[in-house]
Order: sequence, then structure tokens, then C-alpha cells
Amino acid sequence: MSIEDSISEDTSGREPLVPKAVVSRLSLYLRELQHLHRSEQKTISSSKLGRALGFTAAQVRKDFAYFGQFGYPGIGYRCEELIDQIKKILGTDKKWPVVLVGCGNMGQALLGYRGFAKQGFDVVAVVDVDENVLEKTFQGLKVEHIERLPEIVKRHELKVAILAVPATAAAEAAERIVKSGISGILNFAPVTLTVPKNVSLVEVDLAMELEQLAFSVFQNQQP
Amino acid sequence: MSIEDSISEDTSGREPLVPKAVVSRLSLYLRELQHLHRSEQKTISSSKLGRALGFTAAQVRKDFAYFGQFGYPGIGYRCEELIDQIKKILGTDKKWPVVLVGCGNMGQALLGYRGFAKQGFDVVAVVDVDENVLEKTFQGLKVEHIERLPEIVKRHELKVAILAVPATAAAEAAERIVKSGISGILNFAPVTLTVPKNVSLVEVDLAMELEQLAFSVFQNQQP
Repeated sequence: MSIEDSISEDTSGREPLVPKAVVSRLSLYLRELQHLHRSEQKTISSSKLGRALGFTAAQVRKDFAYFGQFGYPGIGYRCEELIDQIKKILGTDKKWPVVLVGCGNMGQALLGYRGFAKQGFDVVAVVDVDENVLEKTFQGLKVEHIERLPEIVKRHELKVAILAVPATAAAEAAERIVKSGISGILNFAPVTLTVPKNVSLVEVDLAMELEQLAFSVFQNQQP
Repeated sequence: MSIEDSISEDTSGREPLVPKAVVSRLSLYLRELQHLHRSEQKTISSSKLGRALGFTAAQVRKDFAYFGQFGYPGIGYRCEELIDQIKKILGTDKKWPVVLVGCGNMGQALLGYRGFAKQGFDVVAVVDVDENVLEKTFQGLKVEHIERLPEIVKRHELKVAILAVPATAAAEAAERIVKSGISGILNFAPVTLTVPKNVSLVEVDLAMELEQLAFSVFQNQQP
């Protein structure tokens, strides 16, 4: 199942589809609210929250309406409360242990990346097939053979894997991950993967970030 | 200048602010349109384009209205034409040569990442300070000392740098990048940088991608 097909049950018993972009905006709202909270701002209106991110107030309200009623008439949203609610919706109010599949350049880079732990994602195991890294220790984790993945997934009750192998090895590695009982894959290999319907897949598009930067630079150059 | 402050001149001579999120949605529209174009779909309405991404038709029209009039009454948007127009707006209708600053794990991983070239971003030079990588060749590029950055920027007429040094080295490296005449930095170091107003900065938040995945997995687990 791709994230686009994610379903959220509402109280009426219907199952409205929550589009990928709505979930993506929840992350943006969360970042903005965490920023406001750190600046000790207590409340914010839908129009101000929208304006900070370039959305209309109606879009903000429509997005939250997928999940319930969070605002207060005459007050707006209470920042700290909404942060907790969004985290609960996203499922990130608790820790997520993660296995890293592939300990080459990208894998090692991701192991050293501190942003994951900050949002509750802990890499607890690393697997690979390459004898150059097997049994070696990176960031306190000893690299195990990918054959041990089912056992590792069970041991740590893992749901999520980060896939960081070369493009040529990605399909086979993804198959092993799925067989091990993992429910979600974050794919850094620049290749489109096919996974069963019950497995979630998010593909990281780093080029999109460069595109955003290019636009900004391009605009600044305009006479 | 951060991307949030980006300004687009319209034909009336006013300078409306184009919010970061609008530009970010342009990248999403572009991906969706490129996908439709590959499936040989010729046209699409604002409501269908919106629905595919979870936006309202009004949001789609409002986003494009920042840049002009692109739709045709009774037809909608012509996919191929809109792709070209978005690329022109983003500035990615031409190639962007890029310098990579930092050739450690993350840098080497990014050098091997094929997604950049596919969208028109070519890494043409690599700099570092570490003697372990200096003068070595990665992906056909010899690592030069960061002191040569001003000369490299001039030689290749570079606008954009990818910063992939450890967090502790990021501030100093960013300062060198800015002094070399670069106008935009894509920062992978998990640290908040301060740059002059005329330099664009995009920070990559990989944790947000994991958050999106967690939501999807979390939703699938609901009974």
C-alpha cells in the first residue's frame, strides 16, 4: 500500500481517503508549530498558520478537518496542543526503531545524520551483504548480514527500514525487506520500487530540494 | 535571502511575494505532469491535477496565478506546455552546474546519487579540507582544496553549492562558500546556518520523509 492510499477512519464510520499531500502538509504544520512553540507563542489562527506556509486559511482548516476539530472559536489553534495532536495523527508521538539496509556511502551518511533521532527515529540495526563492512561497527552498531533481517525485525519489533543500497541492488534488497515482515520502506536508491499493497513506500527525491534552491537563486538574479 | 522571501515580478510591475510552499507545490505539479506526460496524457483540469496531489482546484489555480495564465477554457492545462512553463519558472529549463563542498560519507553518497543529473543538476567540482580525500578522484572528479573555491566558482560560473560537511564544520564552510560568490546553498548538515540576505538557503529535512512513512505504516496498522 502506498502512502497515497492511506486511509483514516472518521467517527461516522466512513473511510475518507487522506491524500499524500495532506499528510505532507501535516509535517509542515508540525515544523511551523514547533518553531512557534519554541518562540513561546501560545496560539495561532488558521489564516496566520496558512500565511506562514503559503496556504489559504480554508486549505488549513480543510486539512485538519480530515482528522477532527482542533481549533477554538475566537482563539484559533493552541500550538502545544496541536503539536501533540499532529504527532498522534502521524504516529510519531512514540519512538520508531529503524533498520538501515545498506552501509555504503549513503548508509553511513544516514547513520551519522542526527536529524532522525531528533524526531524519534532510532536506527537500532544495520545490515549489508558487502564483506568490506560486515561485522564492522559504525556509530556503535555492528553491521549484520542481510540474511539475519527476519530475526532482527522480530527482535526489535521493527516496522520501518531505510533502504540505502546502490540502484542495481535495490530491487533484491527490497524483496528481502518485505519478506522479513517490514511494513514501511524509506527508499534512497534512485530507482522506482514495486512493493506489495500492504507495504508503505516513500521515495526521497533530493533533486526536488535542488529545484527549490534553483528557483530562489534564479529569482534573485532577475533584474 | 531565504527562499521564503523570494520575489517574482509580475507584468503589472508589482512584486508579489511567492511563498515557499507555492514554489514547493510547483515541484509537485511538475512531477505529476511529467508522470502524466510519460503516460501520454495530453491535458488535465485544475481539479484533477489538484485531486492527484490532495489540493483543491482553487489552490491549484491560485498557485499558477502567481506566475500567469496557463489554462485553456474547456480544456484545462496542456501537460507538455505546463511542464515547460513550470521549468521556466523554476529556472530548471537550463542545466545548473553545482559544486559539492565536503566529500565525506554524505558528500560521496550525493556524488553517486543519480537523481540530480536527471533533473539538470551536474556536480562539476568537489572541494574538501581533509587530506584523506584531497587529490583523490570520486565519480570522475578530483577533490580540490576548499581554498580554491573562488577560482572554481569563477571557472564554472557556479551559482549553487551542496554543503555536505559534518555539523561542526558547517558554519565555517558556509562562510567560505558565501565569500566565493555562490548565491545558493543546499545544506545537508543537520545544523541551522546563517547566511547573508542575498544568498538562498534550502535545508534538507530527511526526518520529515520518515515522518510521512511512519504515518502510512501507522494508518495501516489501525484495526
